[in-house]
Amino acid sequence: MNKDTLLNVYNNIQAYIHKTPVLTSRLINEIVGAELYFKCENFQKMGAFKMRGATNAIMQLNEAEKQKGVVTHSSGNFAQALSLAAKSLGVTANIVMPKNAPQVKKNAVLGYNGVITECDSTVIAREREAAKISKHTGATFVHPSNDINVILGNSTATIELLEDYNNLDIIVSPVGGGGLIAGTALAAHYFKSDCEVVGAEPIEADDAYRSLISGKIETNETVNTIADGLRTQLGDINFPIIQQHVKQIVRVEETEIIDAMRLIYERLKLVVETSSATTLAAIIKEKHQFSNKKIGVILSGGNVDLSALPF
Amino acid sequence: MNKDTLLNVYNNIQAYIHKTPVLTSRLINEIVGAELYFKCENFQKMGAFKMRGATNAIMQLNEAEKQKGVVTHSSGNFAQALSLAAKSLGVTANIVMPKNAPQVKKNAVLGYNGVITECDSTVIAREREAAKISKHTGATFVHPSNDINVILGNSTATIELLEDYNNLDIIVSPVGGGGLIAGTALAAHYFKSDCEVVGAEPIEADDAYRSLISGKIETNETVNTIADGLRTQLGDINFPIIQQHVKQIVRVEETEIIDAMRLIYERLKLVVETSSATTLAAIIKEKHQFSNKKIGVILSGGNVDLSALPF
Repeated sequence: MNKDTLLNVYNNIQAYIHKTPVLTSRLINEIVGAELYFKCENFQKMGAFKMRGATNAIMQLNEAEKQKGVVTHSSGNFAQALSLAAKSLGVTANIVMPKNAPQVKKNAVLGYNGVITECDSTVIAREREAAKISKHTGATFVHPSNDINVILGNSTATIELLEDYNNLDIIVSPVGGGGLIAGTALAAHYFKSDCEVVGAEPIEADDAYRSLISGKIETNETVNTIADGLRTQLGDINFPIIQQHVKQIVRVEETEIIDAMRLIYERLKLVVETSSATTLAAIIKEKHQFSNKKIGVILSGGNVDLSALPF
Repeated sequence: MNKDTLLNVYNNIQAYIHKTPVLTSRLINEIVGAELYFKCENFQKMGAFKMRGATNAIMQLNEAEKQKGVVTHSSGNFAQALSLAAKSLGVTANIVMPKNAPQVKKNAVLGYNGVITECDSTVIAREREAAKISKHTGATFVHPSNDINVILGNSTATIELLEDYNNLDIIVSPVGGGGLIAGTALAAHYFKSDCEVVGAEPIEADDAYRSLISGKIETNETVNTIADGLRTQLGDINFPIIQQHVKQIVRVEETEIIDAMRLIYERLKLVVETSSATTLAAIIKEKHQFSNKKIGVILSGGNVDLSALPF
């Protein structure tokens, strides 16, 4: 892998994704004493960065594989992303979703022509169902975060960010399943090697923080965090990348996430998911460390239940 | 007045305002069957288009007048806009606010160095207090919407919009005090004379709709609308401009405003004020009329109480 690997991915998927804007807020900069550049993946197609990874994963398939389709298990953004990317590329996307997934999420997948198979809501049931579909149809399984092509697709958000702002000292990314921060770290490494990558993670689901300390993939016993996109854990493909290229993970409290989310709504006038707000929460929490730096901030997505905003 | 009048205003204020982005949504376009181009004045400095008019009003003063400052009465966006514009230009802004205005609004004005004078919450008390300040200090009174320099400043949002999209058939603007739609109409007239301007107004405060029919400025007996920025009425300076250049005003129900607002949050991922949502509500309501058109939509601002969202 080298810089050209990432550039090729970016060139390939460019026609299928939005180049998202980067926004700033004078007031937020004053609060943190640094220059923040918010990469608005909430404006990405289907509302989250996941569109990038899903698109690349499908584009890497050969024609025979594309004929047979793809399959994943997800009830969140990746289900929509894979469905829309598959639709754009003329491929069938099979989505395994728990029976009790909200109808609004099922409708979103159906709206993008995704083919839903329902299953019990345990991880084992979901994986078994996806494996069954893969076996029967020959569809390629695409993991939402632990897949190198997904990670490379995700890296393109940071390629764009560094294209617009090539003087960043730090980029802060949320950490959930690890697919976004691994992509962020690869892009920073190959496109601006002196730009540090810092993760932001809820204390209530701090498996990545603990994994970096212990040197092996840790799990969460409970995931009582409002940042529902970050309840997942690292995988064997993204963890080594994170170990090598991520300097630090900052853990944040639930109230810190909510306060930062409110600031993003009030000052940036952006609708973002709770997961996205962990980044600004981390910067505010450790503001002495970030003081006077130029900081890229990945706002990962904007698919949020407006009826359940925490303020 | 001619095109150069507006261009000069734009050139003058450009350094003090943001050129705001224009966003689109494939799904919203599908819903309405037209191409919508949302002009994001919620990203304007202090969060609303009012920054444009306030800045121009102050810049038109001579040095002696600037020394003596400006005064207005407002508890909303114009109070903040005049305070920030005055601060940027080294001028004192006196803001008359009702005693019972929320502390958060007072703080916003104070944050921009505005000098607050409190008064009773009646219109008469506010006008009297502003006149008194003007008499004592020599400060120039600037009306939030019924002032030609404010109107010309507001026109620059549409100048920018037509600069980016010179093929628009229609521009839809909210109607409150009339300062925004009058500016919109002037810019459309001088920069693309075949582009129609349509107003969007709550049925619950439909003074402008009735004024266009009767040919004189009508008032509202009640203003039971969630669109708090649109509870004001037209004035003698903006009304003739609206009569001459605004083709139509579409009136919308409260539920239509709320539904459109939700769509803007969910699909555009933007935080906007209720007033801004009247535009999309009007387009959805009259979608047969707007079908297949290229429509500019002025999202007037984003200063909303997040604790009181209607969903």
